Amino acid sequence: MALTEAEISYLSTQPLGRLATVAPDGSPQVNPVGFRYDPELGVIDIGGHALAASKKFRNVAAGSRASIVVDDIVSRQPWQVRGVEIRGDAEALDGQDPLRPGFSAEIIRIHPRRVISWGVEPGQDGMTPRDVA
Amino acid sequence: MALTEAEISYLSTQPLGRLATVAPDGSPQVNPVGFRYDPELGVIDIGGHALAASKKFRNVAAGSRASIVVDDIVSRQPWQVRGVEIRGDAEALDGQDPLRPGFSAEIIRIHPRRVISWGVEPGQDGMTPRDVA
Repeated sequence: MALTEAEISYLSTQPLGRLATVAPDGSPQVNPVGFRYDPELGVIDIGGHALAASKKFRNVAAGSRASIVVDDIVSRQPWQVRGVEIRGDAEALDGQDPLRPGFSAEIIRIHPRRVISWGVEPGQDGMTPRDVA
Repeated sequence: MALTEAEISYLSTQPLGRLATVAPDGSPQVNPVGFRYDPELGVIDIGGHALAASKKFRNVAAGSRASIVVDDIVSRQPWQVRGVEIRGDAEALDGQDPLRPGFSAEIIRIHPRRVISWGVEPGQDGMTPRDVA
């Protein structure tokens, strides 16, 4: 499993993530996106209206890796935040889903390679980065 | 002015942005950050605890450009969102502030080059990208 149960549970409560991709000229962009963690495949799938026409989709199709952060503010007084950042290899799918034969998909798919979470695990203090296979 | 009055006003209501930077190996990262728009200098300044030790700071010091998105959900039913994405050149400052002689600063400073907003201007429909000087 790329993600822990606590991380998966947290992700399911959040309506948006923010996705970073890199243009071929090296400049980053970042956008709010809808996302879904697929526990069976161990990937993050990002959809959206007219996704294949978007710059983020073209960035990934051109070879960009991707990072998505899902985070929120639990309390302002005292200041308490939590979140998960997932970095990985990315695919721009606009046709058959290679991992789900017979299904079509227009998505950006992230294969997690590094995961960093904070405030998500019970008793978690500070940031916990780890590499995943 | 790099930003419009409506954009500046919106930014002042939001406690966090999400900052994307690129590591020297080309992989993006994205993090929630505190930020401030400086209307006099026309820049976005990003602070934070132990900023100079962070990977995002090192990315910028190594030449990464940056993008920050500030966005929120106005309503879920009906679905209504708004936000501003600001892409630009970035500086990692860890000493004297070159734009404010006599002041020291530990910040990532973004000089806006492209601004994209949605749901922020009165009557704004869809996304409005523009280049800024």
